[in-house]
Amino acid sequence: MPPRANSMSKFTLAIVAGASAAVGAATTAAIYGLSGPKRQDESHTITTTSTTASIPGATRTAPPAPAALPILRDDPKVPAIAPVDPSGVFQYGFPGPVSDLRSACSLTSAFDRARRNPHWVAEHITPASLLIRAGDRRHSYFAEDTNIPEKFRAKLTDYARSGYDRGHQVPAADAKWSQEAMDSTFALSNMCPQVGDGFNRDYWAHFEDFCRRLTTSYPSVRVVTGPLYLPKREADGKWRVSYEVIGHPPNVAVPTHFYKVIFAEDGKMGGNVSLGAFVLPNAVIANDKPLQDFEVPVEAVERASGLEFVGLLPPTRRKRLCQEIHCSVIVKEYADRQRTMMAPAPQKGAILPNTALTQR
Amino acid sequence: MPPRANSMSKFTLAIVAGASAAVGAATTAAIYGLSGPKRQDESHTITTTSTTASIPGATRTAPPAPAALPILRDDPKVPAIAPVDPSGVFQYGFPGPVSDLRSACSLTSAFDRARRNPHWVAEHITPASLLIRAGDRRHSYFAEDTNIPEKFRAKLTDYARSGYDRGHQVPAADAKWSQEAMDSTFALSNMCPQVGDGFNRDYWAHFEDFCRRLTTSYPSVRVVTGPLYLPKREADGKWRVSYEVIGHPPNVAVPTHFYKVIFAEDGKMGGNVSLGAFVLPNAVIANDKPLQDFEVPVEAVERASGLEFVGLLPPTRRKRLCQEIHCSVIVKEYADRQRTMMAPAPQKGAILPNTALTQR
Repeated sequence: MPPRANSMSKFTLAIVAGASAAVGAATTAAIYGLSGPKRQDESHTITTTSTTASIPGATRTAPPAPAALPILRDDPKVPAIAPVDPSGVFQYGFPGPVSDLRSACSLTSAFDRARRNPHWVAEHITPASLLIRAGDRRHSYFAEDTNIPEKFRAKLTDYARSGYDRGHQVPAADAKWSQEAMDSTFALSNMCPQVGDGFNRDYWAHFEDFCRRLTTSYPSVRVVTGPLYLPKREADGKWRVSYEVIGHPPNVAVPTHFYKVIFAEDGKMGGNVSLGAFVLPNAVIANDKPLQDFEVPVEAVERASGLEFVGLLPPTRRKRLCQEIHCSVIVKEYADRQRTMMAPAPQKGAILPNTALTQR
Repeated sequence: MPPRANSMSKFTLAIVAGASAAVGAATTAAIYGLSGPKRQDESHTITTTSTTASIPGATRTAPPAPAALPILRDDPKVPAIAPVDPSGVFQYGFPGPVSDLRSACSLTSAFDRARRNPHWVAEHITPASLLIRAGDRRHSYFAEDTNIPEKFRAKLTDYARSGYDRGHQVPAADAKWSQEAMDSTFALSNMCPQVGDGFNRDYWAHFEDFCRRLTTSYPSVRVVTGPLYLPKREADGKWRVSYEVIGHPPNVAVPTHFYKVIFAEDGKMGGNVSLGAFVLPNAVIANDKPLQDFEVPVEAVERASGLEFVGLLPPTRRKRLCQEIHCSVIVKEYADRQRTMMAPAPQKGAILPNTALTQR
């Protein structure tokens, strides 16, 4: 039995699209050129009827327009060249999706403009990088990522009073090696809405600590972190993806789960890579829950996210992380960790072994 | 009150990832190189520890690795060069998302690997293209898009017994100008699960007919069509996106809505473009519902989809379609349309005016 349409369609979209009626009217006017300032990109204008449009903003992703496709002529009614040019729409701009690749000193990420969360955020930690403690999170501030167009960006106000933490995907504690490195983890393009107590401030934090402790066994560790929106079987037997959307208007998705794909490298040229993939629900998780309960094949994360993580890594070089080391979290209470974290950084040369590895 | 985790996390993901336990075990083994054939792309192997990795598969999208970022040195504890290389993970492959751009003679599209639907499908129709009737849909067959990797592709079996139609985004009836053109609309990368009776076979079909009828007023019409996944305010006051996922395992999303962005061109170089954007729920819609109830600003579709449609079109060239022509559907019963559609194509030279414009 298909659902029946009601009158909410337009209303829902209006909520996604804009805020007050006044803003909406102004937006509409701007779109149709009824009033308002001209756009700055008018110099990009090219011909309106085109078969070989040159599209400045889309050259990296757009293929050449299919100007005169040869068509089979065994039917005399078939034209010798295609009468249409579907790619000609690129003259008005390449629709995307654009993933807003960001390369900062502490992370590399790709952004999901529809859900206003990252697709993935990649980081790299080593025993040496974690020992340097020149960045202090008291000097870092959450900030919108102004490299993402305003209409697709997550905003500070979207998170306000949402009930969710601004959850770092690359943890601030992994980027203590400079203030700039730490600051760059505070961009909202490195955040997703996360359940705070019982998850972001607890089990997820212990899991992040687990990743740091891997540097006691491996000289180089890469971690890719991101959100998932997984289906659940409901009472009617159907599978549904269902997630909250926060913000004003509601536009930032609250992921149902988070993944980490871990690459623990042996440090040799063409050496082995120990792989671990984990998927945790964005929910309260009891501290005594074994980490290995959340281990999944890398391919499971790939199928669920639409991403690929190990396409160029030959199977002969792959090891399974949790067969080599014991995959488990060490529980440390949040208040203790906060105290440790807020303590002054140790003087140069006074760093104790493993200090960075056991603190968040 | 945050949700509490239960044990379904891993189970849910397993459903997304694979099928039977046997398949799952084989998958895991292949991923960790425990057994099974070697991958063909082993020749792509490059160094494992890298600061300037060359990544054959990722060169189009990957930025150069930040090998030696200069860091401010006002703090003596801060290293002169970055101790980490976050983009080095690209040596294992660029995570994506890859949007599988497809350029066929009848359409151009981008694919969403996570939801296994297109992001958008663009087409171009003209009075001339609709008059040519060399393609016959009785000779076209629904087919999987083998250009998309198997694990991200929608499959014929995913739709089987789902209760949803394989809904064309670019309609077959817009590509009658050659059999090849029509065939290319039958790839599953041009489909989304659509409610059949009352939507795909009725109101949505009338809407597609409306687009074709625009060619009686405009010499060139471009239409971009695609799915949306819109939030709805629920009883608890929160906004949630909720959509069914069909297939085996469940992996093809059922959109909550569909959009069309219409560009009706006046045919002059640098001329005017009449824009119309519509968002319809994927649900039964009464035939007497006015089409204009579904009109929205283009920007509303952009914010909801994360895409951009008119970035390079100056406001001075934009007109509002529904201010220029009467935006309404003409209801024609499904059975009548089917009969017309299945009738033999007219002989060359015997094409009646407007024939193609009133038939589906």
